[in-house]
Amino acid sequence: MMKQLYLKRDSKRGVEGTFNWLVDEVAELGEELKGCNREATEKEFADVIAWLASLANIMGIDLEKATADKYSYKCPKCQSLPCSCTF
Amino acid sequence: MMKQLYLKRDSKRGVEGTFNWLVDEVAELGEELKGCNREATEKEFADVIAWLASLANIMGIDLEKATADKYSYKCPKCQSLPCSCTF
Repeated sequence: MMKQLYLKRDSKRGVEGTFNWLVDEVAELGEELKGCNREATEKEFADVIAWLASLANIMGIDLEKATADKYSYKCPKCQSLPCSCTF
Repeated sequence: MMKQLYLKRDSKRGVEGTFNWLVDEVAELGEELKGCNREATEKEFADVIAWLASLANIMGIDLEKATADKYSYKCPKCQSLPCSCTF
């Protein structure tokens, strides 16, 4: 969906510019977490994942596959579900 | 899946600590983007979405729903698919 919506603009902006936007959105989420506006917080979560998807799209990385490859119902460190890491 | 894997540990760590981890993971992604190790870059994307999901989970926010509510096959600013914002 993000590809259909924004790939053309994202591609023009490039990797570095899109990463910088992602960083800004993470900062906005951090600010919103200090408040108590749940709806606004949800929108900031949406923005972070949207910009992360934009960045993945312009790099040709499948975000869902990348995540499923690393976290596939087991912790990549202890190999357990749930995670049983002791650190 | 992230809830099954990490909710107990995430809840103990709390919102602020988990947000700080998310920020660290975004910084690691930024570093990886400067290189050319595609597999390592994919893993960093996975880590960012994993920590974002952890943060959403301890706040009881449904990340997928939050995203679908804001970006539902139209740009939230111009209401078009694809986005036709001019700025």
